[in-house]
Amino acid sequence: MNHQEALTVYIASFVSELVQSGVTDVVVSPGSRSTPIAMVMAEHPNLKLHIHVDERSAGFFALGIAKATKRPTALLCTSGTAAANYFPAIVEANISRVPLVVLTADRPHELRDVGAPQSIDQIHLYGGHVKWFVEMAPPEASDEMVRYARMVCARAVATAALAPSGPVHLNFPLREPLIPLLENNQLFLQKERLNGYVKIQQPTVSLMKDEWDIYAELIESAERGIIICGQIEEDGFSEAVTAFAEKYQFPILADPLSQLRSGVHSGKAIIDTYDGFLRNERVKHMLKPDLIIRFGSMPVSKALTIFLKENHSARQLVIDGGMGWRDPALVSTEMVYCQETLFCEEVAKRAETKQESCYFLKWQKINTYTKELINTIDEAEELNEGKLFHQLAELLPEEAAIFVGNSMPIRDLDSFYHFNQKSMKVVANRGANGIDGTVSTALGVGTIHQPLYLFLGDLTFFHDLNGLVAAKLQEVNITIILINNNGGGIFSFLPQSSHPKHFELLFGTPLDLDFSKAVEMFGGQFTSISNWEQFSQTLLQDRGKEGIRVIEIVTNREKNAEEHKKLWEFVSQEIDSWMEKEDA
Amino acid sequence: MNHQEALTVYIASFVSELVQSGVTDVVVSPGSRSTPIAMVMAEHPNLKLHIHVDERSAGFFALGIAKATKRPTALLCTSGTAAANYFPAIVEANISRVPLVVLTADRPHELRDVGAPQSIDQIHLYGGHVKWFVEMAPPEASDEMVRYARMVCARAVATAALAPSGPVHLNFPLREPLIPLLENNQLFLQKERLNGYVKIQQPTVSLMKDEWDIYAELIESAERGIIICGQIEEDGFSEAVTAFAEKYQFPILADPLSQLRSGVHSGKAIIDTYDGFLRNERVKHMLKPDLIIRFGSMPVSKALTIFLKENHSARQLVIDGGMGWRDPALVSTEMVYCQETLFCEEVAKRAETKQESCYFLKWQKINTYTKELINTIDEAEELNEGKLFHQLAELLPEEAAIFVGNSMPIRDLDSFYHFNQKSMKVVANRGANGIDGTVSTALGVGTIHQPLYLFLGDLTFFHDLNGLVAAKLQEVNITIILINNNGGGIFSFLPQSSHPKHFELLFGTPLDLDFSKAVEMFGGQFTSISNWEQFSQTLLQDRGKEGIRVIEIVTNREKNAEEHKKLWEFVSQEIDSWMEKEDA
Repeated sequence: MNHQEALTVYIASFVSELVQSGVTDVVVSPGSRSTPIAMVMAEHPNLKLHIHVDERSAGFFALGIAKATKRPTALLCTSGTAAANYFPAIVEANISRVPLVVLTADRPHELRDVGAPQSIDQIHLYGGHVKWFVEMAPPEASDEMVRYARMVCARAVATAALAPSGPVHLNFPLREPLIPLLENNQLFLQKERLNGYVKIQQPTVSLMKDEWDIYAELIESAERGIIICGQIEEDGFSEAVTAFAEKYQFPILADPLSQLRSGVHSGKAIIDTYDGFLRNERVKHMLKPDLIIRFGSMPVSKALTIFLKENHSARQLVIDGGMGWRDPALVSTEMVYCQETLFCEEVAKRAETKQESCYFLKWQKINTYTKELINTIDEAEELNEGKLFHQLAELLPEEAAIFVGNSMPIRDLDSFYHFNQKSMKVVANRGANGIDGTVSTALGVGTIHQPLYLFLGDLTFFHDLNGLVAAKLQEVNITIILINNNGGGIFSFLPQSSHPKHFELLFGTPLDLDFSKAVEMFGGQFTSISNWEQFSQTLLQDRGKEGIRVIEIVTNREKNAEEHKKLWEFVSQEIDSWMEKEDA
Repeated sequence: MNHQEALTVYIASFVSELVQSGVTDVVVSPGSRSTPIAMVMAEHPNLKLHIHVDERSAGFFALGIAKATKRPTALLCTSGTAAANYFPAIVEANISRVPLVVLTADRPHELRDVGAPQSIDQIHLYGGHVKWFVEMAPPEASDEMVRYARMVCARAVATAALAPSGPVHLNFPLREPLIPLLENNQLFLQKERLNGYVKIQQPTVSLMKDEWDIYAELIESAERGIIICGQIEEDGFSEAVTAFAEKYQFPILADPLSQLRSGVHSGKAIIDTYDGFLRNERVKHMLKPDLIIRFGSMPVSKALTIFLKENHSARQLVIDGGMGWRDPALVSTEMVYCQETLFCEEVAKRAETKQESCYFLKWQKINTYTKELINTIDEAEELNEGKLFHQLAELLPEEAAIFVGNSMPIRDLDSFYHFNQKSMKVVANRGANGIDGTVSTALGVGTIHQPLYLFLGDLTFFHDLNGLVAAKLQEVNITIILINNNGGGIFSFLPQSSHPKHFELLFGTPLDLDFSKAVEMFGGQFTSISNWEQFSQTLLQDRGKEGIRVIEIVTNREKNAEEHKKLWEFVSQEIDSWMEKEDA
């Protein structure tokens, strides 16, 4: 068997196993060294190829697909800095527990570290930011090496998916000639093990019977229990946690990424304005918990983080099926490594339905009252970053996917997007909270979930501007709400804003760009909004339309920070008066 | 001393030492965690800050500055994926031996690996791709810790500069509050060691006296010696190597990045069309060397690499002041670790001036004849990628900096840009040969060298499109010659081009973008050229003008590959006939 035959058999075995292991999508960046893998992949009838020229965007696009499908998504690029461009998306995937199978082509051993072109050290290229790294054996077609290719592939996909999910990296040394022999139309034909070379039985992260009883008893004994849900995406979790909460009469402080702020469940236990009222000292005093049960990653709200720190003597259970350590406040008393849905179901099963609790009612009342206060934001006539997010529940269609950029948009969404029953999905990159790759990740999500709405600031948009090309080439429809405050809006909320000397240079960083041009280049439609009526009309008119639609809302950084400050002062003062009345 | 005072003293000591160690430029990306370093840097009167929102572009922009200044350039960003975005530029800097001092802000220890926002594992973030990594001590202002900050800084800058130059990485754990106290107007005042905390005496990589004699003798005894110069930038090297070559009567095969194809030296020994004539078997046979002396990195020409492999029995000296292993053909017989200029000077000093050598004359004659043949490309009336580069020597102004993109432009420059005395500088990212970061690196070079001309293809332009913002914000003038063949032109030269089935999908990858829009967004001027006259006129008219000027030349990938093929066949056939005549 010559080199090309061996190359073909080895790569085809790998690609065949990739599909049998459940990978459906691969994002491919063009390159020479990766030619045999790309060409074989293109031959596979059950593998969807997405071509993306910029590997940084490609990485985030794959991240988006994996977030949406909850399946490992593959990436393929050539050797050299191409592979280094994946790094930001890999870091994000690792922290946010998203399964990626990263395949990089490499020079063969004899061309490494000898000044050969496009040759960099790719061994452990992503360090500890991947769950597993394999330097693949050079292609050979012996029975043993075919078994090896299949085994490594099955194992890589399973490792990416295993809780906590994350990225794995396989590096392929490939020698010229790089062209596989595709005339063989039995490329993926197998004689045995037709359902995949090796099945990996994934474990359930669970507890023993008596441990359930202990937790059930512990939770039942709490008088002032609360549940906190950060970002979590587990099938059945919304139902399980709401049933759990209603049984125990515990409020659920639901981060927008918990997927609990929208859905067909009753919403009775959902507290969605804590970011507003937990800024008030009297409220915080009144609501001191004795038990905190946390699910998912750390919520966005800074007010909530402070509340957690202040209540460090409360018992705090962190339920984590990913067996990590999600406790930046360093206040947890118990790390419970158990699948979140299962925990809710098994523990609730053991509990009596509780009487209506006075403590629970207090949370509900303050939440309802705060919501009324926040509703006054709708009176604002001028364009305003808060009101924008306050209107989403009403303006967006049923089943919309909302992708939200970091920095201010996610915080505003947290403050102003409240419970609704539209079953909208909220997605963000909240592993490392970067402003990079946002457009691309959203578009990856958009290959699965439509209609897709992306909310982001101008710096975030700029950072991943060329990511928009995927919308054009992969034909993903997207409506982008571009909150253009010409610079880094979040810094106006930080202490440096009171040091004007270098503020605009170092933090404000206005780019003064007319984004309509870039949007036009990608074949999109750009509308700059001048009033609220035009905003809602444009959103409604654009529903169901194809292509890229960008709606720009121009705001002012300084004024925005000022308005937020005023609103929270107003909310806190009104709460104070209201509490005085209640007490009287 | 409180936290903010200690933070200020520690950071100010570091920044002060950075400047005293010779760093003049720092590229800063906005962020919260890096606030104290950014604010202190902005206070320093002798540090030039370049603000860049996208850290990937920022990394390459710094790389460009460091290439041009030959001094370590600093980078500063916040924690999280921001730092991961530097990775491609760091990989390139490491291989192409460019000194960078990468400063990343990090969360303090108590916020690491506990799910805190914007917190990733930054320890050894760039693995083996940096020369030195230091996890900095948390800020303290004791005398000892101030000495520590200064020592690490001086050492980091020196390590980056030490041959082979490269990137170093310092990671700063910083705790809130992050605002330094800048009211103290004696921020950088020092009582002692006014010229820097510690001077690091860099070594000269040299040989002992008797070793010079041995090499002088060895080289003198060669009858058929050639010199090959790849990318090299060392003061005085051009003069030293041309004097050396003329003394020994050795031809210099000069890569465009050797800086030998342009300059005030005689050019007598320069061979600049080898990429054309080393495709001819008879010529290769005629020109078989017995000694090869190589300087700099591996040249671009594939024909030359093949020639080297075919002559593996010739003695081959690789002179490398960077003490690396630049020999992808695996044919070197001696690695000589010695500063290149010094080697030329010391060895030549020991040699008698040789008689005109017949072998040398053969190289010159074939070079002159090939140049005549290549000149026929000027007859082409249609726009053509080869002719474009053939005209540069004439069309570009004295002292121009030519930055050339990877993939086809660097190869075409190699084939068609011949010796001239205009002292033009040619720069490219030829460490890992990526298409990423090209616009940004060119702009970094452009902060020092003007006028700046960037030649690149459409995919390369697209890959770093948002890098253009630096031209706008940092006011760097640039003329971009965009060779737009709507996709990956190089693949039409590779074996996959004869497999049409998935070719356009996987390799051709047309983006169908109207780049004029993006250029307009950045405030640039865009001209699409339709004939050669318009091209030269536009280039001439644009001379000395400010801002971004993009000249687009639309070509056809397939036709381009075909024309190249035809030209080299023509050159080879004509050489054959000519040699027959010569022999007769």
